Amino acid sequence: MARPGPISGFPEWLPEQRMIEQQVLDALRVGFELHGFVPIETRAVEPLEQLLAKGETDKEIYVLRRLHASDEEGDAGLGLHFDMTVPFARYVVEHAGKLSFPLRRYQIQKAWRGERPQEGRFREFVQADFDVIGRGQLPFQYDVELPLVLHEVWSALPLPPLRLHVNNRKINEGVYRSVGIKDIQGVLRAVDKLDKLGERGVSELLVGQVGCSEEQARVCLALACISSADDAFVEEVRALGVHDALLDEGLSELAEVVAAGRELAPGLMIADLRIARGLDYYTGTVYETVMVGHEALGSVCSGGRYDNLASAGDKLVFPGVGLSIGVTRVLGRLFGRGLLRASRNTPTCVLVALPAEQDRPRCNRLAAILRGRGIPTEVAAEPVKYGRQIRYAERRGIPFVWFPQGESGGDEVRDIRSGVQQPADPQTWSVPAADLRVRVLIDDATR
Amino acid sequence: MARPGPISGFPEWLPEQRMIEQQVLDALRVGFELHGFVPIETRAVEPLEQLLAKGETDKEIYVLRRLHASDEEGDAGLGLHFDMTVPFARYVVEHAGKLSFPLRRYQIQKAWRGERPQEGRFREFVQADFDVIGRGQLPFQYDVELPLVLHEVWSALPLPPLRLHVNNRKINEGVYRSVGIKDIQGVLRAVDKLDKLGERGVSELLVGQVGCSEEQARVCLALACISSADDAFVEEVRALGVHDALLDEGLSELAEVVAAGRELAPGLMIADLRIARGLDYYTGTVYETVMVGHEALGSVCSGGRYDNLASAGDKLVFPGVGLSIGVTRVLGRLFGRGLLRASRNTPTCVLVALPAEQDRPRCNRLAAILRGRGIPTEVAAEPVKYGRQIRYAERRGIPFVWFPQGESGGDEVRDIRSGVQQPADPQTWSVPAADLRVRVLIDDATR
Repeated sequence: MARPGPISGFPEWLPEQRMIEQQVLDALRVGFELHGFVPIETRAVEPLEQLLAKGETDKEIYVLRRLHASDEEGDAGLGLHFDMTVPFARYVVEHAGKLSFPLRRYQIQKAWRGERPQEGRFREFVQADFDVIGRGQLPFQYDVELPLVLHEVWSALPLPPLRLHVNNRKINEGVYRSVGIKDIQGVLRAVDKLDKLGERGVSELLVGQVGCSEEQARVCLALACISSADDAFVEEVRALGVHDALLDEGLSELAEVVAAGRELAPGLMIADLRIARGLDYYTGTVYETVMVGHEALGSVCSGGRYDNLASAGDKLVFPGVGLSIGVTRVLGRLFGRGLLRASRNTPTCVLVALPAEQDRPRCNRLAAILRGRGIPTEVAAEPVKYGRQIRYAERRGIPFVWFPQGESGGDEVRDIRSGVQQPADPQTWSVPAADLRVRVLIDDATR
Repeated sequence: MARPGPISGFPEWLPEQRMIEQQVLDALRVGFELHGFVPIETRAVEPLEQLLAKGETDKEIYVLRRLHASDEEGDAGLGLHFDMTVPFARYVVEHAGKLSFPLRRYQIQKAWRGERPQEGRFREFVQADFDVIGRGQLPFQYDVELPLVLHEVWSALPLPPLRLHVNNRKINEGVYRSVGIKDIQGVLRAVDKLDKLGERGVSELLVGQVGCSEEQARVCLALACISSADDAFVEEVRALGVHDALLDEGLSELAEVVAAGRELAPGLMIADLRIARGLDYYTGTVYETVMVGHEALGSVCSGGRYDNLASAGDKLVFPGVGLSIGVTRVLGRLFGRGLLRASRNTPTCVLVALPAEQDRPRCNRLAAILRGRGIPTEVAAEPVKYGRQIRYAERRGIPFVWFPQGESGGDEVRDIRSGVQQPADPQTWSVPAADLRVRVLIDDATR
């Protein structure tokens, strides 16, 4: 076998890291299901035309072809999905007759983008999305509920806390429109680059590329610089002197989202009018989220309200609102800095020592008793010296080694950390709760 | 949005089916971890040369390219993996310095093959693999242990029981060699088609294509027709009159595997000398598995011993033995026949009714109390008439609707199946265990 190596942008974790990832994903699932979200998965591929119709990611799509396919064969037009929002919208329209609305769903899957890899950007990554989607209409109330769900679910994770930055596209559109700007999406895309280019750079973009006047650019930037942890932002926007019905609606919606966040957890949420999001399907509330202490990583959970993404025919739309957690982005950062580790590198809690090959059936029965009581157990592979069997356990961090005696009892179990060895009966021996399962340990000042 | 539709070979489940799939996968994970297997995941792609080096699946590989990639760009040589054995072997060699051996690992992921779709054959499917791999050497004992793990893990699933068919390549090789056959792999591939072509068809293949004499073909077929639930097969093979050291080793290994199966669960395991497996990397024990009552589906869990698949340099090999469960194949069959269903189509156990919009904060607090006690709960989206809120619950099979009263108590909860409504306190109300989680119900004569 040729010496294999990593492929840039396609991360792979060691077993102890994968155990951490699984605990994070499990906690997300439990949290989503406690809030009544149903799980779905969509196929990894979508028709290319579907993928190209949404977003600005055409350069990043991976297209599939069968190695020996003739040109006429059918798979030519398939690409790997680059997110879960577009496939979910398609799934909803396709299966609408068999779904109950409003549909609360979560979806934890891999997605692929042919981006240039860098910190926080991968070519293969896991996203955990949760959305509510309606048939015909969807109450605004869900825009308020979703970030609260995120906060509750995230609080159960062994990860640094979140801060949500929220805006509402109706505010931007209202303000832009009333100062005479036509290219709303162009301005949003320019403002989205504020962190990267700074105010001067965005201003140049607005005037030079989008076609704004100096005064229009000034208003756009003034709006983008407004933020507050309470409803102070409303007065600041009003002070721009703009009047527009859509703007009023946006301000009132954003104030409601922020007020609910403030009630649940002060400091959790910020009205931040620079949040634009690159994707053009958002129509109202938009969210970005940073991990406290890791702001430089950028948003780790983004989303928003999309009223027109999914539709069947001309009349029927499926408006939705959702958030997407960048699991690989978060874990890649924390693994890369050595901030997360597992309490051991195997699920095994007990290694049953093997005195001699003929004792194997008895050791297997003993292991089965422990497993039947929910204790992860393996039997040593070979009847080598006990010292070697103990070292096998030590290398993996397996906390207990079980030494079987005769059928009539007399077994002993050793805690290999303390070296204390005591009599034990497999039917009644109790494991310290902290040792039963692998624990995730975080080394982070924010926790 | 253009009317979307399914893509042949890429199955997609409804939410209640996905909940069933998740319960199956969770039970597999719990079972594997109870036996001390660590989880890993490998990237979805491998270098094409790596994929082409193993197995006979070259025509089925999906190759990736970036939509707007120039020819010089690096992703050209990547393909989606078609199983988890080849990527796992690569992972082991790549990360060997950071792994502890023997490594017990499980891996539950999707794989992709551009096969012509038919019942039991998908282009995208989930496999659940578990293997033990050693560094330099691996005790034979694991060949015995793995099918027992499969049996124990499977027994916890809401699925029809399994029957394992086991063989050992050393028997085939020993017999073939001693009657003068050179093309061992050719014979194995022909014998692998016995179910499809019958004895006459395979005989024609052996003589016509593989180049066997009539007598050699007769011995190959006679061997393939031997099977027994105990060690009776040993005498039957001996009766062929063949003597070979490798054959002796294979007979003794197979007898040991079958004896251990017999001790654990009589009828579970059959020594079946027709089991050949198409892949050429197996070197000893080989397994196939049928679901009782669904034999026509073919093998749902296959694998074997591979001593030379993974190697680093000339000297160091990583011998392994493993099994792979075809999760999508199993569920596709049972879903297709309507044999599996979920007790409801949402995780939600309680719907908190919303009397009026201004009651929402109180309803949210109430829901949070129930969730804090592990009870999946959602609050109604809109303060519509109670009759409509109850129908929302009914449509989803949510068993309980909670009617909040004042802050000082007086709440009531209704079991919407019986219509019985009773006073309840969110801090103490207890859910019947059968209603807390979604249950999987199977309609199968074998359970």
